[in-house]
Order: sequence, then structure tokens, then C-alpha cells
Amino acid sequence: MSKKLTKKNKLEIIRHSTSHVLATAMLDMFPETKFGIGPAIDNGFYYDFGLPRTLIPEDLPILEEKMKQIIKKNHPFEKRVLKIKNAIDHFKKAQQPHKVELIKDLEQAGEKQITVYKTGPFIDLCTGLHLESTGEIDASAIKLTKISGAYWKGDENRDQLQRVYGVAFTNKKELKQHLHMMREAKKRDHRKLGKELELFTFSDQIGAGLPLWLPKGMIIKQELEKWGMETEEKWGYKRVSTPFITKRKLFETSGHVPYFEDEMYKVEVPGEEKEDYFIRPMNCPFHHMIYKSKKRSYRELPLKIAEYGTVARYEQAGTLNGILRPRVFCQNDAHVYCTKKQAVDVFAEIINLHRYYYDSLGLKDYYIVLALRDPKKKEKYHGDEEMWKKSEEVSIKAMDKAGIKYVVENEGAAHYGPKMDFKIKSAIGTEYGISTNQIDLFMPKRFNLKYIDKDGKEKYVVVQHQAPLGSSERFIGFLIEHYAGAFPTWLSPVQVAIIPVSEKFDEYAKKVKLELKNAAVRVEMYNSNNSLGKRIAEATKQKIPYMLVVGEKEEKEETVAVREREGKKQDVIKLEKFINKIRKEIEKKE
Amino acid sequence: MSKKLTKKNKLEIIRHSTSHVLATAMLDMFPETKFGIGPAIDNGFYYDFGLPRTLIPEDLPILEEKMKQIIKKNHPFEKRVLKIKNAIDHFKKAQQPHKVELIKDLEQAGEKQITVYKTGPFIDLCTGLHLESTGEIDASAIKLTKISGAYWKGDENRDQLQRVYGVAFTNKKELKQHLHMMREAKKRDHRKLGKELELFTFSDQIGAGLPLWLPKGMIIKQELEKWGMETEEKWGYKRVSTPFITKRKLFETSGHVPYFEDEMYKVEVPGEEKEDYFIRPMNCPFHHMIYKSKKRSYRELPLKIAEYGTVARYEQAGTLNGILRPRVFCQNDAHVYCTKKQAVDVFAEIINLHRYYYDSLGLKDYYIVLALRDPKKKEKYHGDEEMWKKSEEVSIKAMDKAGIKYVVENEGAAHYGPKMDFKIKSAIGTEYGISTNQIDLFMPKRFNLKYIDKDGKEKYVVVQHQAPLGSSERFIGFLIEHYAGAFPTWLSPVQVAIIPVSEKFDEYAKKVKLELKNAAVRVEMYNSNNSLGKRIAEATKQKIPYMLVVGEKEEKEETVAVREREGKKQDVIKLEKFINKIRKEIEKKE
Repeated sequence: MSKKLTKKNKLEIIRHSTSHVLATAMLDMFPETKFGIGPAIDNGFYYDFGLPRTLIPEDLPILEEKMKQIIKKNHPFEKRVLKIKNAIDHFKKAQQPHKVELIKDLEQAGEKQITVYKTGPFIDLCTGLHLESTGEIDASAIKLTKISGAYWKGDENRDQLQRVYGVAFTNKKELKQHLHMMREAKKRDHRKLGKELELFTFSDQIGAGLPLWLPKGMIIKQELEKWGMETEEKWGYKRVSTPFITKRKLFETSGHVPYFEDEMYKVEVPGEEKEDYFIRPMNCPFHHMIYKSKKRSYRELPLKIAEYGTVARYEQAGTLNGILRPRVFCQNDAHVYCTKKQAVDVFAEIINLHRYYYDSLGLKDYYIVLALRDPKKKEKYHGDEEMWKKSEEVSIKAMDKAGIKYVVENEGAAHYGPKMDFKIKSAIGTEYGISTNQIDLFMPKRFNLKYIDKDGKEKYVVVQHQAPLGSSERFIGFLIEHYAGAFPTWLSPVQVAIIPVSEKFDEYAKKVKLELKNAAVRVEMYNSNNSLGKRIAEATKQKIPYMLVVGEKEEKEETVAVREREGKKQDVIKLEKFINKIRKEIEKKE
Repeated sequence: MSKKLTKKNKLEIIRHSTSHVLATAMLDMFPETKFGIGPAIDNGFYYDFGLPRTLIPEDLPILEEKMKQIIKKNHPFEKRVLKIKNAIDHFKKAQQPHKVELIKDLEQAGEKQITVYKTGPFIDLCTGLHLESTGEIDASAIKLTKISGAYWKGDENRDQLQRVYGVAFTNKKELKQHLHMMREAKKRDHRKLGKELELFTFSDQIGAGLPLWLPKGMIIKQELEKWGMETEEKWGYKRVSTPFITKRKLFETSGHVPYFEDEMYKVEVPGEEKEDYFIRPMNCPFHHMIYKSKKRSYRELPLKIAEYGTVARYEQAGTLNGILRPRVFCQNDAHVYCTKKQAVDVFAEIINLHRYYYDSLGLKDYYIVLALRDPKKKEKYHGDEEMWKKSEEVSIKAMDKAGIKYVVENEGAAHYGPKMDFKIKSAIGTEYGISTNQIDLFMPKRFNLKYIDKDGKEKYVVVQHQAPLGSSERFIGFLIEHYAGAFPTWLSPVQVAIIPVSEKFDEYAKKVKLELKNAAVRVEMYNSNNSLGKRIAEATKQKIPYMLVVGEKEEKEETVAVREREGKKQDVIKLEKFINKIRKEIEKKE
């Protein structure tokens, strides 16, 4: 093994080698196993098997035990090069039809010989790389995690196989960290919390990928969007609202047809049979139409137009994921129209706007990926060399000026210019792409977006695309995981739970509720017939920031016993003092 | 003429008779005129003519003069009954091919004889009714208003005719009132003001009937919707947000398919070829899905769900009218789910909510039209006799309880229940249908909307549909006409114009601007190179409620010279005092 391998490469080799160990263990358990494929994946590996019976979860520890023994035996990964014909003969004799098929595929692709690797009694068709021997795997750093079904070659008409997933790391500590993160991620799963906290739902009768915001989730959505709108107003953006359908031609002009047609929803407008319509997958060209609704002067620039615009983008059923990846969503969208001279400053300001939002939310771990054209596939993009050079240059200058962390990737640009994607890590380290930005020299020419300059001449503007809070759906999905559903007070659907010790104190509890409501605090009464302890547990499960327990003493003294969701401590303070404290917390978005 | 004719019938007879007078005058002007048809319409009449030359506006007073002479001559309207054959012979000889065609149509329909009316030299095919003689028309109460093109029988492949429009009333005073209202309506036309005040626009590249809200219009839309949302919150409504597309099946369950299919936009979801989708024309079934998202108890009822929901309904190109009748719009929608017992009280409360909105806006002239089933076409509606009886009864009880003015019409119900339409008159008397409400006993059964009652049994809820502020588009279109674009301060896009006497006072003007902005007042600076008078005229044209003129005296004394858009008076007051005054006005929505 080369010493130059990076840590990432090394982990991949460990993971792939571990899949061979799993296969060897399976051969020991079921000698008649038919082997599929066994690649390394994020955090681990899988292997597909044709087996004489269905696996049960209890099989996993048995297989793990066998794997540990194989590691202990320190079998070398022995490489052999075989002629196609000999390889076919071998795997036919071993009754491994899938391997035979794979070799024939390789033969068809022009290969004359193939490599196999032997691990103890198990011989697998494989190109490598592998560790030197099984003993290099840390047996305490691997774990089998899941059994699922899989079709041979992903084709539902071929054999159904059983897939065993596992994770593998360099050492035990890394495995422990990973398993902890997985448990956390499961607890923080936005679909699970979305249901428990009654934030959103889906309906089979409406359709997949089409979220319905329930009242409590809608409060979060509204608070977030209100913050977005207020912030944009302060930063000089003008708000508009545009329709969600349009003639097909608009997206022909923008060049999105044909690139994105597979993701776009076609619409039939009853009386306009001759004209094709789309539901919009993005808002940009609508803002261009607003820009063009009158002659523009240099005096108006930079002109900042913002809209919470709802769009539809088709996602395959298999990739849908709650509100993190729905088909219809509402974007925190804005476009700034400026002169070439203003472009760097304007974009640096946009980066600072992102920063303001993320820092306010206590998100620390974010950076930009600057996605350029794949230099080998330049023909797949619109615009000329000059335009691409210029927009890359401006993007980099702006990021340097704003002093933000960024990495450059030679792929992933939009069809009309380089993309700057903000990546944010949640509290448990999952990375989310939240906001995409572009400095766009292409659309102004396609849509003829001009202004009259000081010298009286018409010039093209530069368009800057942005969406700092992404789509409300995706951003809230991310926040649910980040906060584990325990939103900061200003975003919490219910900010205070009032819990009378017994029904004798319902009157005082109502008074407390009214005063909080009058102070615009969102409050719910927990005065069911359940025991005090149970009601505290219910409010805690609902992740309500404050529980106010009230009884005889509190009523007499006009106080409340404040219990925070994080701890068990109870502070008895004057109601008025609590109201001041929570109002301040809400206003400051702490 | 029967003495029993109502005023409306009498006006119709006057108007139709006047169209004969117009035709008689045209025969005098062009003896070769080919006559089409000449019915009475709202406020007047028209007549279609085939003429030797194109009419010009200057022809109208000439025709009017001739009409007056014909009226003066007091020709009787002489009725004659002719056999079909004789009638055809007559009109053939008179070279009136359109009349001949109409008679042949009547023959085909089984008529044996037809009636003609003679007015002086002019004989027309007509069924009546008419006045006794032309002298009964008040010559000072008629006016020709417009010339336009029209196809024979509305068919663009047939002869092109020229249509002359006129208005006719009982007396001169009524005509004057009407013409005044027409001039006012033209000044107040929402499309004209929408353009002048930069409130909204349309784009050919996007499509007809699809409004784009410009920044200033968007402020009105946002303020109105914010008011709607705050009010609903106070009245106990819970806010939701649901997607604008759905499987077709949802609207099959609701029974809207097939009734409304012609108005619905079909959608192709790329990966779901087997499933038809629609853009929603209404939000109701989405709220039903939210109702059904969990088991409901009687304790939760009445449950009030509200949404500003965007919908699409196809309107024929010819009926589109700015934002008053667009194809995509945003509804102030809500549904209340309650028990049968609660139904009357709940609906009375909904009526009071309407009242609160309309009274706050200073609208006084409104009432409800209760639209029942057409008793002759009961088969065209869903639901049984019992259900209709019950929902009519509850509707009437609720309106009586709320003490609101209403009229009953035996047509116009929804396919699933009686409709209660709020009608409002604008300041110039135009009547608008703004909000439709229903007490709905039908959908609960279609969607199986139930609750667990005190006795532990499952029972159907009653659904109450409402939309007090209608669609934001239509409502703002109405308000533009009602206020003639001079919105109350809280709704005005720009609330204050600051007009420095000369550029020497720009600094003080900026200070005034900043202080107003800090007090959340929407303010614009009018400090261009134009003269003071011209800038005041510009701000007045923009219907800005307050103009603050500032010069040397104001700067020294920290005052502003306040000029209201309505008058020319200028009051000099302390800036601080003005800010307090306008803040109060905004907060109270005066």
C-alpha cells in the first residue's frame, strides 16, 4: 500500500477490504451463497448476497463474530491475474452466476484478463485496492448495521438479493463517535420530530413531496420568513410577488429549457391550447420581467428585488426526504441588478447578509464551494470564454473581499455561470447545501437587461442571484436537526407552557396566560387531568422553552416557578420579571 | 303599456325603444344601411349596422340630433303581425339580408308568423315590448357613447358590422348622474391607477391574467394580508400552508370534477405519468386533509384553520380584467370545523368578522345574497333534500342572528350547498362580489370528517367556508376604485413625501427622513432638480397622504410644513408632533 494515500483513500480501502471479510464470513455461514457486489460507501460498505434463507437481525452479531475471527487469522489479500476464459471457468465451477455475468460484461468491454483476490477460502472478482492482510483491520472499529433487499444490477426483473450494510473506521474511537452521531441523527430526524411536534404532514390524497404545514410548523415558517423580510427591508431590498406559472418561452429565453425540462411541471391552460405553460422551477426570470417593466437609470442601481417565491421541481420518488427534499417549496429568493463596477462590492455585501443570518442563528461552521465549469465539458455550458473568465474573477474577488472560507471545484457550475454554494454543518456535523449564489453576466444578454448610464448610453447590468435562507422547507428541516427540535424561543411554536399544580390554581394559571398573551408570547395551558409530573414530561417532550408551574405560593405572591426545558432547576420569580425576560429574549432572537 | 311595469322593466323598454330610434336615424343618414340587432343592455342599448363607410366619433352628435327630431315627431311604435313568407318577401325587397336570415331561423324553430314594428319610415323585426310612441322618450336623457366593431352573430367568419352604443334614462338628472359616475369610474380605473402608481404589471412573456406585484403594490398586499393574519389570530384561527398542486382524485372526492374541470389547470408531474394532477382552484380540500391529519375530539371544536392560499382558475381571455379578474390569485381563505349545535353561532361570528373588516375600512354599503338551488334544476346539485333544507335553515338563522341585510335568490348555489355572497358597493356605487361563504353539510360526508363527541361516538362535523377579504388581487382592485388610489395612510405604499424647498435644505430633509424611517414610516425624498411646485404636483399625483415641505424656517425650528394630499393648506408643526400623529393614524388604521 502506497504511503501517499490520504486519510480518505485509506478509509475507503479499509471499508472495501472489510466487505471482503464480510463475504468470507457469509461463505462460512452459508456455503451455497451466491455473491453479488461489495463496494465501499460513505462511512462503510455493503455486500449483496443470494442466500438460502432470509436474514434476520440476529444474524448480524453471528456474522460480526465470524468477521473478527477472519481478521484475527490475518489472511493476506492475494491478488491473481486470470485470463477471461479461466476466470469464467473458475466462477462457473464455484456456482457464482453473478460473477460469471460480470466477467462476461468485462469481456464485452474489451478486457482480456481480470484480477481476483483471495481472502482465506474466499475468492472474489475485484480490481482492488485492498489492505495487505485482514489483520490490518481494527476488529473493534467495524460494525454491521442493516439488512435490506436489493435487485441484481438494480433491475427489478432480475434476482432479488439481500444486502448487508456495515460501517468501518480506523479505530474504535472513530466508530464510537460515528455510532453516537447516528443515534443523535435518528433522535434528531426531522421527519420523526416533525410528526412528534406536529410541524408538518403529507397526504397520499394530495401527493408525494407536497408538504402541508400544520399550525405549529407554520409558526416557525412565518417567524423565519418574517425575519427574512424584515432583514431584507433593512438591507434595502424591495419586495415583489409574481405568479407561479408562465409560458414555456420564458424558460427558453433563460436557457433552462432544455437543460432542466425533466424537472419541470408542464401545465395545460384550458383556453390556451397553442401555448405551453410551466410551473416555475425558479423565480429569476420573473424578477427580470419586473426589472424590465420600466426604463432603468444608473441612479436606481444597485436595484435589489426580493420575493418569497414558491416553485416546483420534480424529484424522483426515491430521493424525496420529508421537507428537506420536497417537490414544492418556498424560496428566500432575491436578485440584485448592478453595474459591472458595483459587482464585487455588491456580492461581498450578499456574503455578509448570509453571515448575518447564520451568525444570528448560532451557526458557526459554514463555507462556500465555488463550482466552476468542468474544463473537459465546456461545450455543455452557455456563454463564451470571456464571460466565464470575468464571472469567475468577480466571484473570487468578492469572496476574498468578504474574507470568507471557500474551496474551488471544477464541476457543478450552473449552465450560465459559476455557482457559489453555501455549505453549513449542523450541530451533529451533517453538511447541508443551503444557499446558491451566482454572479451572472449571461441572463442580462438573454433578457436584454439594461440601464441608461451617466453618459446617456445603454449598458447591460450584472445580475446577482441569492437565497441566504434557502427554501423555508429545507432550512427548517436543517434547523430541526440542528436544534434537535428545541428551537430558540423566538422560533418556538409554543414559547411557554403553564402548568397549574392542581385545578385549584386554574384561575391564576388563566391570569398568567392572559398576561403572557397580551405581551405577544405564544402560550399553552397544560391543565389536563394528568399528574403534575406527567404534564411536565409532556411539555418537555414538546420542547417548550419555558414551563411555568403555578400553585398556592405563586398565586399569593404573583410569581411563577420557571423551569427551562434543558434542566430540572426551578426558579420562582415575579410574573412581571419573567415577562420582561422572555420578551427581551424573543426580540433579540437569542 | 301596462301600469304594473316595475321601474327596471320600464327602463328596459325605454332603452330598447331608443335603439329603434337610433336605427331610424341611421336609415336617414345612410339609406343603404343593413340592420343587425339592437337590444337593451345595462344602462342603455346598442345597434349593429352594415354601413357604406366607417363611422367616426363626429357622427355620434349628428345621429343624436336626428334621434331628437324623431322623438319630437312622436312616431307611434306600430305593431304588425306577418306570415313568415310575407315577412321574408318584405325584408328581401328592403335588401335586409340579416333580417331575412333571422326570420328563417325563426321559421326553422317552428314559428308560423312574426311581428314587426314600424317607427316612422323604419320597419324592424322585433318581439317588443316598446313604448307607445317615440315622444315618450326624454330626449335630454339619452346619449350615444361609443362605436365598436362586431361580427354578425358574433362569428368572426361572418360580416363585420359597426356597433353604436348609447345610454338612456328616464330623465336628464339620471343621465347626468350616470355620466358623472362613468367619468369617475374612468379616473378610478384600477388598471390606469395601477400603472400610474406602479402597483402591478403584466408581462406578455409570462402570460395573460398573471399579475406581477411591483414593490409599491406589494406593500399594499402585504399590509392587507398582515392585517388579515393578525385579525384571524386574534379571532382564534390557526394558520397553515398547503401545496398548490394535488392529485386529480382529491377534486373528484370533493365533487369539483366534473363541475369545474373546464376552469382547472392540468399538471404533468414528470415521474408520475399514471397520475393526473391539478393546480388547485380552491383550498378547501387541503384544509380537510389537515383536519384529518389526526383524530379530533369535541374539545377541539370549533377548529378554525386559515391560509392565504394561491389558486389558479381559468378565465376566458375576454373576461380578464387587470387584478379584478386574473387567473392566479391569493385567497384570504379559512374553514371552521364545528358541531351541528355550534353551526349558527359560528356562522354569526363569521358574519361579524366580515363586518369588522368592512367597517374598519369605512365600507358601509354591503349585504349578503343567499343563493339557493334553482328549484327547477335540483338534479344539477349534489346531496339530498334533507341536507339542502338543513343548510338553508342554518344559513338563514345565522344571518338573522347576526342581524345583517340579505336577499334570497333561487339560483347560484354551489354544487354542494347554498352560498352566501357578500356584495359591497364602492364609493361610486359599483357593486362587487367580494366574499363567498357556505355552511357545508356535504363535504364532511365526502371526506369523512368526524370528531369523537362527549358520548364517545364518532360524528360528522359541519364545515364553514369563508374569505372575508376575498382574494387580495380582487380586493385591492376594488379598493383602488373605492379610494381612487388615495389609500388610507396605513395602506399607502409611500406615507410621507419630503420636499426640501431647495437643495440647501437637503441635509435637514435627510434628518427628517431618518427620523420617520426609525418610526417605521414609509417615506420618499422628492429632491430632484424640478421646481418646488412641480415636485408637490408629482407627490400629489402619487396620492401620498402627507407632503412635508422643509426650508430655512423649518430647519431652524425643527418643524415641518405639513400638506395633506386632499387640500392646499399647510400647517407648520414640530417634527416630533407630526411623527406621533402619523404613528397613531397608522396604528389605528384610520
